[in-house]
Formats: sequence, C-alpha cells, structure tokens
Amino acid sequence: MNGKFIVVEGLEGAGKTTAINKVLETLKTHGISDIETTREPGGTPLAEQMRALVKEGHPDEPLTDMAELLLLYAARIQLVDNVIKPALNRGAVVVGDRHDMSSQAYQGGGRGFDKALMQSLRNTVLGDFRPDFTIYMDIDPELGLSRARARGELDRIEQMKLEFFQRTRERYLELAAAEEHVAIIDASQSIEDVARDIQSALEQWLNHAG
Amino acid sequence: MNGKFIVVEGLEGAGKTTAINKVLETLKTHGISDIETTREPGGTPLAEQMRALVKEGHPDEPLTDMAELLLLYAARIQLVDNVIKPALNRGAVVVGDRHDMSSQAYQGGGRGFDKALMQSLRNTVLGDFRPDFTIYMDIDPELGLSRARARGELDRIEQMKLEFFQRTRERYLELAAAEEHVAIIDASQSIEDVARDIQSALEQWLNHAG
Ligand SMILES: Nc1ncnc2c1ncn2[C@@H]1O[C@H](COP(=O)(O)OP(=O)(O)OP(=O)(O)O)[C@@H](O)[C@H]1O
Ligand SMILES: Nc1ncnc2c1ncn2[C@@H]1O[C@H](COP(=O)(O)OP(=O)(O)OP(=O)(O)O)[C@@H](O)[C@H]1O
Ligand SMILES: [Mg+2]
Ligand SMILES: [Mg+2]
Repeated sequence: MNGKFIVVEGLEGAGKTTAINKVLETLKTHGISDIETTREPGGTPLAEQMRALVKEGHPDEPLTDMAELLLLYAARIQLVDNVIKPALNRGAVVVGDRHDMSSQAYQGGGRGFDKALMQSLRNTVLGDFRPDFTIYMDIDPELGLSRARARGELDRIEQMKLEFFQRTRERYLELAAAEEHVAIIDASQSIEDVARDIQSALEQWLNHAG
Repeated sequence: MNGKFIVVEGLEGAGKTTAINKVLETLKTHGISDIETTREPGGTPLAEQMRALVKEGHPDEPLTDMAELLLLYAARIQLVDNVIKPALNRGAVVVGDRHDMSSQAYQGGGRGFDKALMQSLRNTVLGDFRPDFTIYMDIDPELGLSRARARGELDRIEQMKLEFFQRTRERYLELAAAEEHVAIIDASQSIEDVARDIQSALEQWLNHAG
C-alpha cells in the first residue's frame, strides 16, 4: 500500500465538502494527480444502499442504534475493501468525506455506545487500517446546523437534538487531541481563513509524509 | 419476559418450514394460542431490506464476508427489539425460522470467522438474549440442496460450494451438542418420521418448561 488516505471530518455544515475542494486544489498544486474521493457512509453501490437505510430509516419501524452502528460498519468495509484499498495499492491519494472517526464521535459520543465496544468493533472490522492524515473541521453545532439547514430538508440524523451534536463534537475534540496526524481547523472562520488553515496544515503534513 | 422463543435451525432444504408447521400444530394441540412466527434474516420492513442485500448482493460489487456478517446482525437486532421481545413480553410463544445459530454455523463454520469473534459479536449485539428451545434439523447438504433446488432458482448463499455447507453442518452439529435446550432431528427421514420426532421433542420440552 503506497498511497495515502486523507480524511476530512466534522459535524454537518462544518464545511467538509468545501474543505475537500481546497484539499484537492492543494494536492494538485503539489503535482499529485492520481486522486480519488470517497464519501461515507456510501461510496459503492451496496454501501449507498446501506447509507439510504441509515439516512431514511423507515416510517413504520425505528432503526435501533445498534443496527445503525452495524450498517455503518458494513458500508465502511465495502468501501475500504472495494474502493479505498485498491486505490491506495495503485499509489493514489484518497480523500475521504468522513471515515471511522465519524462513528467514534456520532455513535460513541452522540448515541453513547461505550468506548471499549466502539474500539473493539473498529478493530474487528477494519483491523489496523487507519487514515494517514485527518482534517477535523471543528464547529459549534448550532452554527453548523444553521449552515446545513440553509441547504434544504434535514435527514434522520440531522433532526437529532442539539445535545446529541454537542456530545458528538466533544468526542470529536477528544479524539482529535488524542490521535496522531490530526489537524484541528477552526471551521467557524470565514471561508477564506478556513481555506488558508487547511492549505497550511496539509502542506505541513505533505512536507513530512512525503 | 414471560413468553418462550422456539427456533428451528438447519441447512437449506432441511425441512425447517415443514417443521415449523408441525411445531405450530403441536403448540395449538397443547392449548397455546398466542403464537408469533418470524424468519431470519428479515421479519421487519428494515430487516427485509437488509435480507435482500445479503441474498441478492450486487452485480457490480462483491459483498464482503464482513459486511454480510454485520448486515445479518443488523437485521437480527431489528427483529429482536421490534418484534420478538415485544411478543415475548406480552407472553406469546415466538417460533423462529432461523436465529443466531445460523450465523454461528454459516459465518463461523462456513465462512470461517473465528469463534471468539463470533461470540463477541453475538454478545455485543444481543446481550444475553437466547432462544428457550432450538430444534436443529440435521441433514446432509447434498440431500438438502437437492430438495431446495427442486423448488426453484438458488440465491447467492445457496450457490456456495458443497464444502461450505459441509463446514456449516459440522459447526451446527458441534453447537447443537454443546448447547443446552437443543433437540437434534434426523431430517433425512420421511416427512412423517420427522414430524413424529419433532412432536415428541417439543412435547418433552413443553412438559419441563411448561
Ligand atoms: N467557513 C464558512 N463560512 C460560512 N459558510 C460556509 C463556510 N464553509 C462552508 N460554508 C457553507 O455552509 C454550507 C455547508 O458547507 P459544506 O457543504 O461544505 O459542509 P459539510 O460539512 O460538507 O456539510 P454536510 O455534513 O451536510 O455534508 C454550504 O452552503 C457552504 O457554502
Ligand atoms: N422429510 C422430508 N423428506 C422429503 N422432502 C421433504 C422433507 N421435508 C421437507 N421436504 C420437502 O423439501 C423441500 C424443502 O423443505 P422446506 O421448505 O421445509 O425446507 P427449509 O429448511 O425451510 O428450506 P429453506 O432453508 O430453503 O427455507 C420442500 O419441497 C419440502 O416439501
Ligand atoms: Mg458535505
Ligand atoms: Mg424455509
């Protein structure tokens, strides 16, 4: 595996999609041309069907937190095995819109699954597969949700209460501080300032990771 | 939880559906009228969608063994939480066409996931929820598949090689011998002899669990 896996993480409306465009621009400036983008949950035909189950649920039946968690990991391993690892093996840089840190933060922090369970599930499903670099877009959930809301209707997850997203953000911050190779970006800034911080964090990492 | 959960297990074409009819008849003879039947994977709107992913896969993308395993458990917890436990709580007898022993046998024995992983996943997802009584229909996979084949086209699982089903049967037999409250039925017998053995095993259990 010679490629690199860069992941952008953060709450809804934090500016992940906007950040990814800046990441792609910066990579190209550095002469990197074999780039693949992914999104989670989803990104393969089967994983997109699992995403739909998580995002839409069912009008007559609650999706249990446990089933949600298992579906997210089922979608993730489809994407990792069928898309991300093959791309890394041919030397590509893969830029992911969310990855495992989302589950640790939303299902662990937000839903309250305990940390040992979350880590054991991750290790069982993913083995030691991890991103090479993570850009965590930190934002107050009220600001993020107001940005996301301006875009249209909210899905099953986006309709959760504010405290859910506050717990999720707390866990994100905890993980971002504890793990290596994570840049924390203040996503409440203007688009220009965010872009500048992303470029500089990414270039610093590129200069060290080669 | 005052009801009872009876599960019928076995390879394709073992005669599970036929056995369930005998179980229902016997329960009614014993004056039990609040009976619910379930099938796995499936049995709720969301679980049926997960079943379809497992059964059909996708023409352009392999379903990984791990995603299959996670989908099966996602479907199972939907059924347990939304159907089986509520029925047991009101005192019903639930008769299941497959349950967790299928995963232990097919994914553990057939696909080769290790036993510790299988048990830990079961405990994580189901806690200590277990059937009260299991009827395992033991059959040589060649005979079972020839019965199933006579019924029509084979799905993604039914198209596996014979050795897969032989490993699955071996694990079934191992579990059936090791676990309590499991009756092993020789499913290669005539329908009449199988029915007699099921009735007698069930009545013996009813007289003790009464
Ligand atoms: N720094 C910023 N300041 C103000 N608005 C922003 C900023 N960054 C992004 N936006 C706007 O906020 C909205 C959400 O941004 P974006 O889609 O990039 O977020 P996201 O994290 O990808 O959201 P989601 O999780 O819903 O996919 C968009 O309309 C975007 O133009
Ligand atoms: N003891 C038996 N002897 C001969 N044929 C049988 C016997 N039991 C069932 N069959 C026939 O074999 C076929 C498969 O039986 P059945 O549908 O009950 O099996 P099953 O275990 O439910 O299969 P599946 O796993 O595919 O649902 C049916 O056509 C049924 O009538
Ligand atoms: Mg986005
Ligand atoms: Mg059947």
